[in-house]
Amino acid sequence: MDTRNDTFQALAAEASRCRAMIRRGEHTGPTAGLAPGCVQANLMILPRSLADEFLLFCQRNPKPCPVLAVTEPGRYDVPQMGRDIDLRNDVPRYRVWRNGELAAEPASLTDFWRDDLVSFLIGCSFSFEEALLADGIDIRHISEGRNVPMYRSNIPTAGTARLHGPLVVSMRPMPAADAIRAIQITSRFPAVHGAPVHLGDPALIGIRDIDRPDYGDPVTIRPGELPVFWACGVTPQSVIDTVKPEFSITHAPGHMLITDVSNIRLATL
Amino acid sequence: MDTRNDTFQALAAEASRCRAMIRRGEHTGPTAGLAPGCVQANLMILPRSLADEFLLFCQRNPKPCPVLAVTEPGRYDVPQMGRDIDLRNDVPRYRVWRNGELAAEPASLTDFWRDDLVSFLIGCSFSFEEALLADGIDIRHISEGRNVPMYRSNIPTAGTARLHGPLVVSMRPMPAADAIRAIQITSRFPAVHGAPVHLGDPALIGIRDIDRPDYGDPVTIRPGELPVFWACGVTPQSVIDTVKPEFSITHAPGHMLITDVSNIRLATL
Repeated sequence: MDTRNDTFQALAAEASRCRAMIRRGEHTGPTAGLAPGCVQANLMILPRSLADEFLLFCQRNPKPCPVLAVTEPGRYDVPQMGRDIDLRNDVPRYRVWRNGELAAEPASLTDFWRDDLVSFLIGCSFSFEEALLADGIDIRHISEGRNVPMYRSNIPTAGTARLHGPLVVSMRPMPAADAIRAIQITSRFPAVHGAPVHLGDPALIGIRDIDRPDYGDPVTIRPGELPVFWACGVTPQSVIDTVKPEFSITHAPGHMLITDVSNIRLATL
Repeated sequence: MDTRNDTFQALAAEASRCRAMIRRGEHTGPTAGLAPGCVQANLMILPRSLADEFLLFCQRNPKPCPVLAVTEPGRYDVPQMGRDIDLRNDVPRYRVWRNGELAAEPASLTDFWRDDLVSFLIGCSFSFEEALLADGIDIRHISEGRNVPMYRSNIPTAGTARLHGPLVVSMRPMPAADAIRAIQITSRFPAVHGAPVHLGDPALIGIRDIDRPDYGDPVTIRPGELPVFWACGVTPQSVIDTVKPEFSITHAPGHMLITDVSNIRLATL
């Protein structure tokens, strides 16, 4: 018997329905807006030989790499994040990398799966954006229908023997009063990047041209608004890129894993 | 029997010792640094005829006017804030106002007391500054040995029939990462002004020259630092000024009422 309340069960049921739709190939696009209220996760799949070091990297860099779950080698279920998750088929589009080069963008991993693969589910800013929207804050890339702008900063991550590189940050412009409120709200979500790492002058963290993001799309910054920068889940991908592992798999940008966990479950206090 | 623990009792004993010293005229200067760990309060004493409206003003403006205690008319004890407080003698220097004009700066109110006076104890930023210092954040006016710079902003307060006027803000410059941390820390202290109301461009809140504060002293803003603005306890004085009441009493700037309450008692979460 499921002892969770009706709200929680309804959220999980909707998440499960979305995953099933994706698994059957009936939804092939980005997952933004699907199963509102449920945590969506970044996916990083690595051979066991690199997984331990990547976990250490995540431990040392919790803001860009908030680990929600790690599987045993070869396993593609994650029961603690959703009872029927199949990591090989539940993401609409994957990216398969060989020696640092994009080798395929399949909708299923059945042809690529290996028994030594360890999967990392990493928190994603969708969770805190939902809380910001619920407080009435305009999230520019959402209201402009674009992907969030992301930049390679000059803030170093805390490296391991092989893994190192700069912090990638996402940027959301807002008026100062909203920025203060956004700091309060996102501080409650350490499992999805938490509080910002910088706000104000982009040059202070090595960003030369705010209108030319390294990833994603530029967005409008209105007069009187401050750019606010959060640690970004693209950081681990960027760091993995630097070692060009013989094999790795990620989700395609914006094509996340939908879990049964409610966003509010990730909130502290 | 006092059931509070030894730490709490030691704080209260030190606060009581400082008040006794002040009462005997042995300490006549500002109270910054006295009884560390204890809440120091702004004092606003008004005739009953204006007190109810002032309380309503405070209710509508909790950030500049966080009320810690209100006395019954004529009472000069405040047992909930300290067991032996005598509001007529425990502040090193008072300011007595008649029709909006400064009439006296006595060290005791015994010659001025009236049975219709209502006293308001209002939270003061000393409490959150202590928490910021404990996190290693430089508070510029403290490290430069000055009074905090304060400005009349163009942010309106929520007025009552007679009481209205702009928000007065205090400013502390800091690097962005410290500003983010300061927002987190001061959010935990809603009883002493709470989170900032603005940061970044001073002109956006009507401040023309950051180097010319309306009250207090200018402080150095280093390259790359953001000015961060908090609602200020000078706001209620400034608002009371506008109605020029026939009689009122405040503490002299920096000469606060030391209470037995520990700063950590004011922290949420």
